[in-house]
Amino acid sequence: MANLLQHKEYVKVPEPTLRRLPWYLSNVKLLKQQGESYVSSTQISKEINIDASQIAKDLSFVNISGRTRVGYEVDTLIAVLEDFLGFTRMHKAFLFGVGSLGGALLHDSGLQHFGLEIVAAFDVNPQLVGSSLNGIPIYHTDEFEQRRAEYGVNIGVLTVPIEIAQSITDKMVAGGIKAVWNFTPFRIRVPEHIVVQNTSLYAHLAVMFNRLNCNETK
Amino acid sequence: MANLLQHKEYVKVPEPTLRRLPWYLSNVKLLKQQGESYVSSTQISKEINIDASQIAKDLSFVNISGRTRVGYEVDTLIAVLEDFLGFTRMHKAFLFGVGSLGGALLHDSGLQHFGLEIVAAFDVNPQLVGSSLNGIPIYHTDEFEQRRAEYGVNIGVLTVPIEIAQSITDKMVAGGIKAVWNFTPFRIRVPEHIVVQNTSLYAHLAVMFNRLNCNETK
Repeated sequence: MANLLQHKEYVKVPEPTLRRLPWYLSNVKLLKQQGESYVSSTQISKEINIDASQIAKDLSFVNISGRTRVGYEVDTLIAVLEDFLGFTRMHKAFLFGVGSLGGALLHDSGLQHFGLEIVAAFDVNPQLVGSSLNGIPIYHTDEFEQRRAEYGVNIGVLTVPIEIAQSITDKMVAGGIKAVWNFTPFRIRVPEHIVVQNTSLYAHLAVMFNRLNCNETK
Repeated sequence: MANLLQHKEYVKVPEPTLRRLPWYLSNVKLLKQQGESYVSSTQISKEINIDASQIAKDLSFVNISGRTRVGYEVDTLIAVLEDFLGFTRMHKAFLFGVGSLGGALLHDSGLQHFGLEIVAAFDVNPQLVGSSLNGIPIYHTDEFEQRRAEYGVNIGVLTVPIEIAQSITDKMVAGGIKAVWNFTPFRIRVPEHIVVQNTSLYAHLAVMFNRLNCNETK
């Protein structure tokens, strides 16, 4: 299954679709555990409260066709979705900034089940450089370009303090990184051909706190 | 500053605004480090590439007024934004599911700087129950209701396997949790008055992988 999309042109899938597909995947995995062999978009719709037509539309991006009345075969749908989402191919990444959040991410081996393997980390702290965390070596930031050639990595995970977020990003891009997973609350600037995925836990906290306070004062 | 909003009605701020405000905050913090005393929305705009009119509109939700020509006082803007975003008040939370990601989040003491303190964790694994991680006690899931009364917590962080995501959510809600920070790729259902914040790292990975593949095959 891993090479299913090998000969296929990659289509730029709308972000809302890409965010919903993992919901369908987890739901179908659960149905499989419950012994189901086939699943329809109507069935998924009932489970997760999204229009069946939306689900069918989202799944139309994926190279799979359902059968009238019975729907999609569960095993195939899981395999095709995991492949489509990139979870079956391992993408090597470097992590920059082994602080509290960076260290936490190095502990999270679960990312490997979704196609991301952090193979090395970088920091300037002499107490960290030369050591390892969860088996992942920590190098001095100055070694980045040399190590990139060695490991063949094109994804960088950014967990540095905000004051160096931009300079480390620039260094990554200059060294050949093609995608930055930005966990800092800083809005980094990159050339057009570089992919940035922002995951600001703090922004999510702000939304949650605001909604909670609104409910409490209602 | 912590009680600045005490007597204020909480306004439901649009989510895009709440997601942008932390960008302004981190940017203004950086300008402070660089020795600036005043900052204008035009200045922030140049730094982070968002329209100055959008920034002014977003900041209009926050209780602060700028001065013509000089802009906002940096110290005040930082304090008011941190307060507005809820980062200055500590919100206690329980974490459910001490697996790979759950354990990682327990390691991330940095969340405390943004107003979230995980005070206890729950699991059913006998090897974890009774132990602690980063000083945070791990209790059996059955103890949740009793511990909630004891700790006075109303936020639950969800990091369990997908097959129990819904049942643990139901348990949380029945026990009095008012907001769920859902890190699972599962779409949980909750009553209307319960806040859900979804942070699916896997969905973010899927978006990043797709964009990266599109760029590579261009």
